[in-house]
Formats: sequence, structure tokens, C-alpha cells
Amino acid sequence: MLAEIKGINEECGVFGIWGHEKAAELTYYGLHSMQHRGQEGAGIVVSDGKELKAHKGLGLVNDVFKHAKFDDLAGQSAVGHVRYTTQGGRGIENVQPLLFQSQSGGLALAHNGNLMNAHKLRGELEEQGSILQTSSDTEVLAHLIKRSGNKTNEETIANALNQVVGAYAYLIMKEDKMYAALDPAGIRPLSIGRLGDAYVVASETCAFDQIGATFEREVLPGELVTISDEGIKSTRFAPRNGRKMCAMEYVYLSRPDSNVNHVNVHSSRKRMGIELAKESPVEADIVVGVPDSSISAAIGYAEESGLPYEMGIIKNRYVGRTFIQPSQELRELGVKLKLSPVRGIVEGKRIVMIDDSIVRGTTSRRIVQMLKDAGALEVHVRIASPAIKNPCYYGIDMSTRKELIGANNTPEEIGEIIGADSVAYLSETGLEEAIVKDKTINQGVCMACMTGNYPVTKDGETEIQYTKC
Amino acid sequence: MLAEIKGINEECGVFGIWGHEKAAELTYYGLHSMQHRGQEGAGIVVSDGKELKAHKGLGLVNDVFKHAKFDDLAGQSAVGHVRYTTQGGRGIENVQPLLFQSQSGGLALAHNGNLMNAHKLRGELEEQGSILQTSSDTEVLAHLIKRSGNKTNEETIANALNQVVGAYAYLIMKEDKMYAALDPAGIRPLSIGRLGDAYVVASETCAFDQIGATFEREVLPGELVTISDEGIKSTRFAPRNGRKMCAMEYVYLSRPDSNVNHVNVHSSRKRMGIELAKESPVEADIVVGVPDSSISAAIGYAEESGLPYEMGIIKNRYVGRTFIQPSQELRELGVKLKLSPVRGIVEGKRIVMIDDSIVRGTTSRRIVQMLKDAGALEVHVRIASPAIKNPCYYGIDMSTRKELIGANNTPEEIGEIIGADSVAYLSETGLEEAIVKDKTINQGVCMACMTGNYPVTKDGETEIQYTKC
Amino acid sequence: MLAEIKGINEECGVFGIWGHEKAAELTYYGLHSMQHRGQEGAGIVVSDGKELKAHKGLGLVNDVFKHAKFDDLAGQSAVGHVRYTTQGGRGIENVQPLLFQSQSGGLALAHNGNLMNAHKLRGELEEQGSILQTSSDTEVLAHLIKRSGNKTNEETIANALNQVVGAYAYLIMKEDKMYAALDPAGIRPLSIGRLGDAYVVASETCAFDQIGATFEREVLPGELVTISDEGIKSTRFAPRNGRKMCAMEYVYLSRPDSNVNHVNVHSSRKRMGIELAKESPVEADIVVGVPDSSISAAIGYAEESGLPYEMGIIKNRYVGRTFIQPSQELRELGVKLKLSPVRGIVEGKRIVMIDDSIVRGTTSRRIVQMLKDAGALEVHVRIASPAIKNPCYYGIDMSTRKELIGANNTPEEIGEIIGADSVAYLSETGLEEAIVKDKTINQGVCMACMTGNYPVTKDGETEIQYTKC
Amino acid sequence: MLAEIKGINEECGVFGIWGHEKAAELTYYGLHSMQHRGQEGAGIVVSDGKELKAHKGLGLVNDVFKHAKFDDLAGQSAVGHVRYTTQGGRGIENVQPLLFQSQSGGLALAHNGNLMNAHKLRGELEEQGSILQTSSDTEVLAHLIKRSGNKTNEETIANALNQVVGAYAYLIMKEDKMYAALDPAGIRPLSIGRLGDAYVVASETCAFDQIGATFEREVLPGELVTISDEGIKSTRFAPRNGRKMCAMEYVYLSRPDSNVNHVNVHSSRKRMGIELAKESPVEADIVVGVPDSSISAAIGYAEESGLPYEMGIIKNRYVGRTFIQPSQELRELGVKLKLSPVRGIVEGKRIVMIDDSIVRGTTSRRIVQMLKDAGALEVHVRIASPAIKNPCYYGIDMSTRKELIGANNTPEEIGEIIGADSVAYLSETGLEEAIVKDKTINQGVCMACMTGNYPVTKDGETEIQYTKC
Repeated sequence: MLAEIKGINEECGVFGIWGHEKAAELTYYGLHSMQHRGQEGAGIVVSDGKELKAHKGLGLVNDVFKHAKFDDLAGQSAVGHVRYTTQGGRGIENVQPLLFQSQSGGLALAHNGNLMNAHKLRGELEEQGSILQTSSDTEVLAHLIKRSGNKTNEETIANALNQVVGAYAYLIMKEDKMYAALDPAGIRPLSIGRLGDAYVVASETCAFDQIGATFEREVLPGELVTISDEGIKSTRFAPRNGRKMCAMEYVYLSRPDSNVNHVNVHSSRKRMGIELAKESPVEADIVVGVPDSSISAAIGYAEESGLPYEMGIIKNRYVGRTFIQPSQELRELGVKLKLSPVRGIVEGKRIVMIDDSIVRGTTSRRIVQMLKDAGALEVHVRIASPAIKNPCYYGIDMSTRKELIGANNTPEEIGEIIGADSVAYLSETGLEEAIVKDKTINQGVCMACMTGNYPVTKDGETEIQYTKC
Repeated sequence: MLAEIKGINEECGVFGIWGHEKAAELTYYGLHSMQHRGQEGAGIVVSDGKELKAHKGLGLVNDVFKHAKFDDLAGQSAVGHVRYTTQGGRGIENVQPLLFQSQSGGLALAHNGNLMNAHKLRGELEEQGSILQTSSDTEVLAHLIKRSGNKTNEETIANALNQVVGAYAYLIMKEDKMYAALDPAGIRPLSIGRLGDAYVVASETCAFDQIGATFEREVLPGELVTISDEGIKSTRFAPRNGRKMCAMEYVYLSRPDSNVNHVNVHSSRKRMGIELAKESPVEADIVVGVPDSSISAAIGYAEESGLPYEMGIIKNRYVGRTFIQPSQELRELGVKLKLSPVRGIVEGKRIVMIDDSIVRGTTSRRIVQMLKDAGALEVHVRIASPAIKNPCYYGIDMSTRKELIGANNTPEEIGEIIGADSVAYLSETGLEEAIVKDKTINQGVCMACMTGNYPVTKDGETEIQYTKC
Repeated sequence: MLAEIKGINEECGVFGIWGHEKAAELTYYGLHSMQHRGQEGAGIVVSDGKELKAHKGLGLVNDVFKHAKFDDLAGQSAVGHVRYTTQGGRGIENVQPLLFQSQSGGLALAHNGNLMNAHKLRGELEEQGSILQTSSDTEVLAHLIKRSGNKTNEETIANALNQVVGAYAYLIMKEDKMYAALDPAGIRPLSIGRLGDAYVVASETCAFDQIGATFEREVLPGELVTISDEGIKSTRFAPRNGRKMCAMEYVYLSRPDSNVNHVNVHSSRKRMGIELAKESPVEADIVVGVPDSSISAAIGYAEESGLPYEMGIIKNRYVGRTFIQPSQELRELGVKLKLSPVRGIVEGKRIVMIDDSIVRGTTSRRIVQMLKDAGALEVHVRIASPAIKNPCYYGIDMSTRKELIGANNTPEEIGEIIGADSVAYLSETGLEEAIVKDKTINQGVCMACMTGNYPVTKDGETEIQYTKC
Repeated sequence: MLAEIKGINEECGVFGIWGHEKAAELTYYGLHSMQHRGQEGAGIVVSDGKELKAHKGLGLVNDVFKHAKFDDLAGQSAVGHVRYTTQGGRGIENVQPLLFQSQSGGLALAHNGNLMNAHKLRGELEEQGSILQTSSDTEVLAHLIKRSGNKTNEETIANALNQVVGAYAYLIMKEDKMYAALDPAGIRPLSIGRLGDAYVVASETCAFDQIGATFEREVLPGELVTISDEGIKSTRFAPRNGRKMCAMEYVYLSRPDSNVNHVNVHSSRKRMGIELAKESPVEADIVVGVPDSSISAAIGYAEESGLPYEMGIIKNRYVGRTFIQPSQELRELGVKLKLSPVRGIVEGKRIVMIDDSIVRGTTSRRIVQMLKDAGALEVHVRIASPAIKNPCYYGIDMSTRKELIGANNTPEEIGEIIGADSVAYLSETGLEEAIVKDKTINQGVCMACMTGNYPVTKDGETEIQYTKC
């Protein structure tokens, strides 16, 4: 929710389970735990071994499934999806998993990521007489698979995956098989777990905890995993390179209780706060975090600095989709949105305000102002990640470059813009240290939006046709 | 929400504003900030000086007002209410403010509290031919006012208030006046604020922060405040006694950013944690709070003890009204409800688990088990308030005495029941110290549910006819 | 539906059943068959012998009960109501049956009719300290009953009935008894039927046919019928006078398959058409009725005149509550509302257009125009009842006198206004003949809205305070 | 609605308008008048010259559009559809018009009819790598058009139409053109009208009357009509044969006010009744029609026979989608569904009961029984069409052959089954005479379901793979 204010938007979550008689219900709970990754739509496709059936809708998982009859979704395997719109429209037809029925059987796809050459591929397919029903990248892959041969198998899927370029985690389901595939740079997260005899695949490990499953292993970059009643099988559609896990998964996107590529998110955030306190200390009375995503870093900062951590800003838990936004007039009168200052705490204090990241700066300015209106003497903003200066082509919806406050201003200038007494970022090295504590497991992170070093490029194309970011 | 699991239930919130052209909308935002005090129904009655109009409904404030047309609620004064059912049924007719229309004008009432002699008064009224439309205590007061004289004024209201016994904060509105009244012991909170020229009255001061209003003063025990276009006037319907503010408002009920009788709730909770660390230290690795209400105390405990505060339990933010509860079978498989453990943090650790209070113990047992299943070596439960041993007759819906785990078991026995390695409560003195830091302002607190010392009794009646607690 | 266009509005229907284990469901079907008597709200109160429970809502019977759980309405007796607003607002609180709970038990009331002295009685009750919750006439009776004594029985009910003046059919239910009462002039219909051992009471006999019950007898003017497990008992609260059944029940309000006071409505309408053909013949090609209520009269006219009856106007069956009314611009372009002409039939024809009545004339003008636009050569309007010249004080919502086209214009003038080639009404004698075929059973009809002879007046009051008609 | 009981189900309606700034709204009203042709879903696709936009939904036209914003459907051309499921599932994705977006523009299709070779064509398309999103016949045509060439024009559409076999009326829309096509035998109805400068196309002419448009001409068998801002153009994709308009359109499907292939439906039905009275007279007291579709024939029968027409059966107008069906137990107790007998009319009478057709006989049996229970002395059933003995392959959903009572029983046997005193059908010649009054215009009708003479067959296929009928 805060995301919308902030300008960084989540980028979908996928969930799959194979071999459990409560497949659809467990997928519901799994999706539920990943609700923060997409609130625009949700869906489940279930297989009973003979047929694929779908239940999808716009809105939160709860809304979509509150009238669902799980008896109608009987089956031992399921894939599910929560959607945030990165590419493609908002209509119900774009809600995933996409399900394609044909006389030879069904094909379901769920996708987290972004294809850089989707527009070109779509044009080629239409030239050949194909009709695409959605405006979603995901459908392109389905057509590529269908065009690769009469059957859907490892070969036709690998063939199709080799035509797409970008960052992606795919779940593909047929009546008798489920496939999980990760892009060659491993930018998006995808983990495998076990629940008794059943296999579970999910974007975040918090989905495993939610249903009582245990983590087994990561899907590897360029790997295509096949799950069926015969068990699990691994093939490779691209050579094994070093992994470049998205750094923003740690900074902001993932849930604090998830382990992303073996690293606990809360702990990594706390380390970001500790690093930040080392790099940019400040003389102050209290440390305050912007809820919810900056709390871990704020606690780390407090621990390292020895300053007390206080609840200086509160988030209203009941602000939902139907919340009536206050008019401009009422906001000027002082009516608050989702965050309120705690006057009894901030009044008369010098505050270190910890935020996980800063995109356009508008929210930061509002929060700083709010704290000062409530009596704060000084507000020192400390950002627990480096400045965001570049767009993301890998599935995260940030503002455009000209809107990115960090792309165009020094910390001092930002301080003036947002009204803070000082501003400091965590260094790039500091972020990397905080995430990659064990080099053997974590080969690397993608920090393209901060550094401009993009791990994947569109071969042979001079102009990057990415319209959204 | 957690409340339902816990067995302590909120007890309504009232809001009033006089003299602002956006009265209804501001009441909406005020009620919204007090949503935690009641989620079963909400309503607003507005006065345009000539007529009273109501909009009410079952459910959250958002749900009730999402289709409301505020243009139909034009007027410069309003009273609002969020409802949790302490007494009376759940039908729409019981949603407050109650509005009574007659040929001589309208009368609106909003109430937070509980009347101990409501049953008797209701019987007497019916004997006299009155028809009561609701099963709510609040309606009794309306009939008493009407029977006290042909006009509604300070005299008839005081006359009616002197017939009721219990804990209450009332807002009463006529076309041209608003009245605020507090019970003679001042058990329930009620504050007055200013927004420009307008007067605001609310159960919690967080409602003032929400709309940009400033705190002015408390309504005093036994005081009847009259607000009209001529300003504010104070009369007294009962002699001034020492105040006995409900301790549970600090421990659990109020929002951390509210000041209850001049004391900030978060700060009082942090002091409870600090006292608790002094009274009951434990050798452990990390401090974990049960979200959301125990976080402040946990941070206090961590600060005082020197142990790191960690996010060992996470609360799913998207669990709403439509969440499909997992079946017993799925729960046994490990599907979680609203709280999940963070395995990456608790595994292999000795944990101090801070909870604000413990009622029946069932939730505590579940959380302790969850932490141990996630690999915690030891779980030491520290409760940031004394044991609850007695029912509340003043508007808080707790379990019955035989269900209260603290009424029937020692800490050691509780440890065994809930599977904790040790259990300790905050002492009664410790709680009082944490709340009442400034004796001149805070004359005292009601801790009847812990100590059994009830500040208000039903005179001359041998049997207390209270069925709910 | 057509009613709204026309300006005569239905006036509620009541239904009761005693002694059947499917009481609530049968009441649902009974109300359903009387849906034409009120589409604004519906409700059922059921008694299981110990307690009264209600389910009510705004809208059609179907809408109100589509989510009802009849298991929650278990009980062997029920009263139900469909509501059209004659007096009182449109809020849910006014939907009947009204249910009043007290410590001595419940009391449910359902009412069809209108009280002429309700305003005065309401003022008196409020003077005495009573609080009325609704703006409905019906609640007045409940208060009068309660004030007449501590128990609700024949005596207190009769006492209350003797204080109200007007036209009414009441159903009153307590846990162990049901009462049916009819006003001393018997203006409104109320019949008793049997379904096995159970007793049924309904405004129209079509409700008996709907559930398979058989007609037993009429409730008589001034009679109070008591139904309980001991059987049926008749008392009298007013002396027996000649009955004055509302003529509009035959002309327009009742369903054609109902027998109103022993006379079948369709047959009486056909006789109106026959009388009309005798009184006002016309040289023409075809007879066309305005659907639905004028079809019977049109068939009668055709039979008597020897002209063919044709379907020259059609009514769209799917025009419901959610129908988007065409804008003025679209209506001028020719977009039709609920009625369309059948060009293939009316083109080049001289038409006798039969309508049951004419109120403001606006609809008639539109239909005549529509027929002419579709190619009709001549349109002769024949009205199967006398001109309406006076307001109704007995529960039918007509236009005010100045809007009544028949009060202010001769048939010739009306012809000019509505664009018809000729206009003729049925005579008063003709209508009476058509209804009262058997003088011994039907002592008389109320034709006050046509003749101005009101059978019931407000004694001792110089000014009639009736605002709606 | 009655259709469901009966077993003949409607078969969709299409509507198109070109060149009117209120295109979407007029389409709404046009669809509304054809609601009887399909109640499962409705949709409108609008073109503003640059882009196609859709609004679709499940349910009645009213339900689908009650929350639509017509401002979002701005444009000067539109196609619309009301759907009854003949082939294809019930999901929202099957609701028409189907809209296919591609980088070269949009393509919308609306269809009434049934393709006999759809299954085979679908298989061939999937073999070639096409992905079909719906289970609807209509999508097959879209793929055939796309595969016929890079552009959608008369040539590619004609090419595609020549591959499909069956009965169909298509509306196809691109940003700048609308196409209307009718199958070579002209089995389904499709007419062209004018509304000022705009062109209108509709399945039934009642849609023209609804919006004030005038009939211009029929679309001819094998004709492809192109409408654009340049006007109207006719091409031919199949040689001109004699037309075989579906006889059931007259007997039951179309609205009485429509002219189907120049013949008014009500008038044709009345002639069916007249013919029936000539062929099968009976000594009786009254003529009663089963509402609504048999009323015209009953009036014809009454006129010809000299017997009075009476309203002996009444249809409850308020039985909608949400009507709670009575349980078997309640039905046995006598609770009625949609039709009720009028006891006051049928009691003691010998009745000629006119029905338009008889499919399985179950409804007829219920009605005859109902009339006898209400006191009818004799019930003589006269069917205003010949016996239905064969399935329909052209878009009407009837029961299977073994369920067709007329396929397996003589009139005498049917009389015994349904409890009638006698049963007679209209002869085949009688039906043809009643419909085809002017041989030059109406070259012929398809009576395959009665005679077994199918005007269109699946070439070279021995087995007809039609599963539904």
C-alpha cells in the first residue's frame, strides 16, 4: 500500500504445489503470504490429472477466493499467482495463471519478471497469424511453446525460453507435469520446498512457513525443473553463470521473514542499518523507522548507535482499498493518510529517521514535514540503501529516470528538497556486504537501478524499447 | 483482529465535532483512526442545525462509508461511533449513534462503556409502556432523558445520568447542541480537542492527530460538557472524585500513539517492558514481541536487558474479514493463521517472548509451540502486565473467570500449560509505576480485572446481574 | 412498474400463516405472489413459540431473501409484508413487519392501509415520553397496544384499534398467537384460508393459490380474529356495518387471478370492458389493451363489440430495477421505455385503445402518440373506470388533485390533451355493476376517488392533514 | 424463463450500429429488446475509429451495464450481443462480442447460430500452432480470417466464411468497418435498418422499434454487407439460393412485435391459432393460452372457434433469477412456480388449452394437472405447431431425440401421458400456410425439427458430431 505512495511497486509472486490432495487450498494460503508482491489480481489453476481448471479474479487473494468453492478446484496439483501490473493491462483477462485449453489438453503459465523483447516477439507471432488474447508477456511464451512443436515438453519449453530475453521465474503446468524455470542470470527469486511427499515452488520462502513446508533448495539460473508423479528432474536450457539476485528484494520487496537465496531478509535489513550507523552516524535523541519496511534497518541502526529505538511514526492498519482518500482541502487542514506521527514521542526530539530507500522523494518530504509539525527539533534522514538512479528492466515498476530524486540530486540537495537536516545513503559496498555475508552461496546481486550495471541486455538492439519505467 | 484470538475485546469509540463545515468527513477520518476499538459497525449522525441525519452500517468504517454520499450528510456538527458488541445483539438496529426522531426534534446518542443496572432500568421502562427498539444499553439512557422532562437539556440529561450506574463516556447530540458526559469514576477515556474554531471530542487522542486537531483537555469524571455555537460550558452531575482510568487502555486497548489521560501509550508500554526486565530478567539470546500490541514493551525489555530485539514473529497484514480460516486438518498440517515464526531468526536461539497480557492462554500456547517448531531452543514468556483474574464490568469483553488462566494457575503452572520454559508477570506496582509517572495528573487507575478492587459497585444489589463476562 | 409511470401506486400486502413447520418459506412464496402490491421492501417475522425472529430488507422479495437462511427462520408461524411507501420514509427501519422486543416477549405488526389520525396520535404518544423509532403509521398502533395494558390480548388490541381512524388490515403476532383485524368499513381486503391444518391470512387470494391453500372466508369489517394452537376465534371491536371494498382493487391494484371479497378480478375487469363497449361503442378495426392491467377489459370490449383483439402494444418483460432510463435526448430520438407499439399490427388501423384508468394523462398521451407514430389512423381511448377526481385517504398513493386530469377536464378536453380521436369513461353505475354482481355478498364498494363520497371521515377535525395524496 | 422449463432455448441475438454518436447506448437499448434471445451474458464493443473497446459480463443486459460508464464507451459504431449457450462453456471469456487485439488493430465478432464443422476446424487450427482462448464457435472464424491474409477485408472474411458450415448471422467490426454476413440458406434472421444517417443491423426488428429506427431490408442468404463511413456495400460469398428461415422463430423464439423476414410474428401466431381451430375444433367453454408465447395463437383460436378467450393461467411477473425454487416437498404441498391457475375462471369449465409447442411434455403435464386441480372439467390441449421429432443443428438448444415426446408418441399417447382429454397438433401445411402468406417474399422455412428435412448438411461426414441437442 505504501508502495503506491513510494513509487516502487511489487512485481508478482508465483506458487506451485505438486502431489497434495489439498493443492488448491494450500495454494490459497501460499498466495496469501505473498500478497505484498501483488494486489491487483490473483488466480489458481488446478490439475486433477485429467483436466486443468481455473479460478481467477481482480483484487486481493481474499476477495478473489471468498466465494470460491474449493470443491470445484479438486486436484492434486496447482499453480497460483498474485499480480502486480508491470506490463500489460489491468483487465481480468491478464490475471494469471494464464490457462490455454486445446483439444490436446491444457497449459497453464504463471510468471514473475519482465521480458525485454516481448514487443518484438508479439509482432512476429501476429505476422504468422497468431491471435494473442492478453497484453501480458506471459502469453508470448505460451505461443512460442506451441509453435516449437506439437507437444509441450522439456524440449519445446527450452526452445521457447531461449527466444525470450529478460528476468523471469516461470511456473508452467500441464495435466501431468509442472515445470519451473529461472532466467539465466537468476535475477528473480524461486525456491523449492517439501510438504510431506509433495513438492512446493514459490517466489518467497515465507509461503513455505505459511503452510508448514520446509525449504529444499533454490531453482538455479538457467535451470528447468520438471516435477511429476515420478519425482523431480533437472535440465538446463542455458549455461550456468553467476547469479545476480535483485538487491531490491532485500531492501524493500520481500517479506522480512523470507530467506532470499539463503539470506534472511530481516537480518540483511538489520545489517544494512548497522552498516548505515557505522558509515553515517549522527548526534540525536531517538531512532525512528518508517513503517513497515524500514523497521528492521532502524532497529539495526539503534543497536549499533546506542540510541533508543522509538515508535515515532504509526501506520494505520485499517487503511484498505475502500479507504476514502482525503481531499486536498482536508489534507491541508491536517487530515492524515496512512502514516501519523506520535506527538508524545517526537516532540522536542532530535530524530534519526530511517527509510529503506527513496524514489521520488515526495513521501519522504511529507513524513519529514509531519515529524516537524509534531514538534521534532531535527530530522536526519538515513537511507538504508544507495541512491536509485536508473530504471529497472527486470520487473520492478519504479518511476522514470527524471522522477528519480537520487538520479538528479546530491544528498545535500535532497535534504533541502525534503526539508531534512541531513541526508545520507548507505554505500554500494555497504549494501552488498549487508546482503552477501557468505560469498560461496551468494555469488552476486543485481544493483543495476543503483549502479547502472545491467546484467542482461537486449542483444543487437541499440534502443531499449521499454516504455514503463 | 488478534483480539478475537486473545479474548480481550475492544469496547467502542466515540467521536464528535461541533462547528466545522466538513463535520461528517472529519468524523469519518476520526472514526477510522479508532477502528481498533470496534469493527462490528460504524455510524455518523450529522446536524445541519435543523435536522439530524444518520448513516450507519455493519462492518468496518471503510465498508460502511464507501458508498456514502457525504453531500447527503451536510452539516456543521456530527457524532460518530465504532462499535464492538459488549452488551446487545449484533443487528444493524444496534449500531450507534442511536438516532431518535420525534415531532419536537431529533436526539442522537453514542456510548462507550457498560451500564451495570441496564437490565433493571429496561424492565422498569417497559412496565411503564415504553417500547425499546434495540438491545443496547444506550437506548435506556434515551428513554430516561425523555421521561425526565419534555425538553432535552442539562437538567434532564443529568437527571438521567444519575439513574445509570457503570462506566461510560457519552456523546449526545440535538440539532443545536452537543453534550459529552463521563462516568463519576472516569473509567473510560474521553478527550476534548480543537480544530480551528471547531470543538472535537474523542475516545482517543489519535483521532485528533488523524485530522490535525490539537488536544485541549480531558473530560473530567462526573462532568457534563455542553458544546454549542455559543461555545463550551461545563456542569457537574456527580461530585468530583479521584479518577480511575482503565489500566487495560494502556496495556492493550488504546493505540500506541494516543495519550490516555495525559500519558502516551507507547511510552507507558515501553516502561512496562523496562520494569519487566528489571523484575524478571532471563539469560537469553534475543527478545521477541508478539505483534502488534507487545512490540513497545519488547523494545523496552531489550533496551533494559541489553539483549537484541529481533523480528521473530511476523503478522500477516492482509488477513482481513474475508480470510478463509484454515480447517483443523490444514492447521495440523502446519498452515498458519495470522502469525508466522521467522525461522531464519529464531532457529537455535533462546528467546524472551514478550506479550502484553495473557487471558485464556490458548494463543500463547500456540505461539510458543510455533517458535519451538521453528527451532527455538528456549522460550521464556514475560507478560508486561499482572495476571488477569477477574471479569470486567466496565465495558471490556474478557473471558469468564473460569476461562481466565491467570485466575486459576501460578506462573509455573501456566508455563507447563503453554509449553514455555519460564513465565513471569509484571507486578501490580510495576504496572502502576509504568502508567502513573506523574501523580498529580494521574490520580489512579482501575486494575479491577487484576486486583479485584472494583471502583464502582451496584448499590444495594446483592447479586451482580452481569451475564457476558 | 407501470404504476410508477401511471401515478397510482400499490399499497402493501400482508401474509400470515399459523401452524405449519414451513411457515417462513410458505410466507416467502405468499409474499412473492403479492409482489405487485409493494416493491420497496419485504420482511418476515417468524415465531417458534418462544421467540420472534425477523428477516427484512429493501427491494423485491427475491432480493431480500436470496441470501436468507430459512433454517434461521425455523418456527411454525409467520407474518410477512411487502411494502409500498404510502406514509413514512423509505429506510430499512420502516420495512415491515415491525418487531418490538421486550422483557415480556415480542410483538410483530404488519399493516396495509392508512391511518388518518396518525400524526395526532404520534404527537400525543411523544408528549407522554414515548420514543417512536420509525416514521410508519404501524408503530403508532404498537404503542397504543402497549399503553392499553401490560399484556397484549384481544382487549388491549381492541382498545388500541378503537383509537385509530382510517382504512387498515392488520396482522399482529405474539409468540403464541396471531391476530388479524380489519377496519370497520372493510375498505382493504383480507382473507382467511386453510392449508391442511394450518391457517393462512392474506391480502389477496392469489397467495392461497400460490401455496396450494384454499379460501375459507373473508375477515369482516370491525372483526378481530385470533388464531392460536387452540384454533380460530372471532371477536368484534366495532359494530358490523356494510362493507365498502376499495373499487380500485378491482380496476387496477389486485392480481387478475385473485378473488376480492368473493369476486374474481379478471372477470370483473372483463365485465368492465363489456359494459364499456355497451356504453361507448366506436367504429374501428381492432381493440388494443395497455398491458398488463388493461388486457382483461380489452378482451371484454372485443368480445362485446365483435372487433378483433390484437396485441398492438407490447411490454418489455426484462425492464427491471436496474434498467438504465433513456435520457431525454434518446427518448426524443425514439428510444422506448417499457411499452413498444407493434408496427405490423397497428399500421393503417383504426384502434380502440383500452386503459383501466387515467390519472395524470401523461402516460396515455405517450401511448397514443406512440401508436400514431407507428401508423395508427385513429386512436379512440376507452377507460374501463370512471374519472378519478379525488385523492384517496385509505392507502393508495395517487397524484394530488391538481394533477388529476379527470378532476379538471372533460373527456373532450382530455382527448385534445392526449391526442386521441375520442375519449370515454365507464360510468359509475357501469363500474359498480361490473364489480357487484351479487348484492347479498358485496354490500358495496368505496369509489371515493371517483365520486367524492368518503365512507370514513376524521371526526371532529376540520382540516384533513393528509399530505401525500 | 419459461424456456428453461420447456426445453427449447433461445439462441443469441446480435445488434450493430454504424455512424451514431450514441452508438453504445443505442446498442444497450437494442440488446435490451432482444433479451429474450439470451440471458446468460451480454456485451458491447465500440469503435471510435481508432480503437475498439469492450464491456461484457454474465447475466442480463441490465445487470451487465448497470455499473457501466457509457462515457468510457464513446464512439460512433458498436456491435453487441446477448448470449444463450448453445455451444461453448459459460465462462465470461465466452461472452460476446469476442474482441481480438493485435499490433495491427482490433477485430470484434458477434454471432448467432451454430457451426456444424467447428470441432474439426478447431482441431486443424490447433495443429497449426494456434491457441484458442474460448470454447466458442465464434473464435474459430476469427482465426480463419487471420489465417486468410494479413488484412481483414471482404476477401479474407469471404474466404473464412467459405470454410464454415452451418447456420449463422455474423457481425464483424474493425476500427473503420462493420461487416454483416448471413449463412447461404438464410436460416437465422438478420435485418438492416436506418436511424437518421446511421445504419443498424439486428437479429430482430423489435430492436429497431425500441430505438426508433426503421426497417430497411433483410440481409440475404450468402450475402456479406460492408458498412463504413462511405456507406453500405454488398458482396456475395455464396450463390443465391432459396431462403429457409427457421420456423421456430415464428412459433416460439422471436418477440411477437418483430417482423421476421417480412412477416409479423404475432400475426403469424394468430393465424396458427386460426388454422388450428379449423383443423382441430373441440366442444368446450373457454380458450386459455399458456403465457406468454401462446397468447396470440389462443386469441386466434378463440376468434375462429367463437369460444370466449379467458385468462385461465397467470404468469408471475416477478420470478427472476434470484427466485428461490420451491423444494420438491413444497411443490407437492402445492407451491407453484411461475404459472398459477385462475380458479375463479377455470372451475367447472371445459377448456381448450393452447400451447405453441411441446418438447418433453413435462411442463404440459404440470399445467394440465394444475388446471384440473383448480376444477377444470376437461382440458383439451391444442398445439399451434407440428410435433417436434428431430434435433436442431442450427443453433436452437432442444432436448435430445429420446426426450422429445413428439418423436416417440402419438397425440393419443401424449394425451395419456400429460393427462389431457385430447391432444392435437397443427399440421405441417397449416404451419407453413400461417407463416408464408406471401410466397414471393418468403421462399420457404426450415422445419427440420418437425419434418427431418435438413437444408444444410455436413458434406462427406457420415456421423454428425453434435453433442448438445
